[in-house]
Amino acid sequence: MATKAIFYHAGCPVCADAETAFAKALDPQVFDVEIVHLGEDKARLGEAEAAGVKSVPAFVIDGRAYHINFGADLSALK
Amino acid sequence: MATKAIFYHAGCPVCADAETAFAKALDPQVFDVEIVHLGEDKARLGEAEAAGVKSVPAFVIDGRAYHINFGADLSALK
Repeated sequence: MATKAIFYHAGCPVCADAETAFAKALDPQVFDVEIVHLGEDKARLGEAEAAGVKSVPAFVIDGRAYHINFGADLSALK
Repeated sequence: MATKAIFYHAGCPVCADAETAFAKALDPQVFDVEIVHLGEDKARLGEAEAAGVKSVPAFVIDGRAYHINFGADLSALK
């Protein structure tokens, strides 16, 4: 069964670049990728923070947060 | 043709975790992944720096650097 990978972003240029490089390029045999725009879907900020996300763009895979470069601090999205 | 993706690491726990999460899970139809241990292969530090790598673990894809979390600064590997 595919592992769930959630990609959190906020529509910033750094996010869009990371989305093209990673979110759309993870092996579909391995990952079931969900893309969440935290700027538009603020209801999911809490879940992202609980998983350890501090900034976007970031992935949460198996409950661990992986920050890719730096686009925006989560506090800027509240 | 597959895009070349180079994963630079230094054997640290953060690196090993990122390697499992990403380097081994990129779509093989999309990426040709090369894994470089900069602690053991210091001759490649210059090429990594030229591509914009500041810390490991990091990917370089299409000439762009993507830092994933923070394991070690490149200066610690010289």
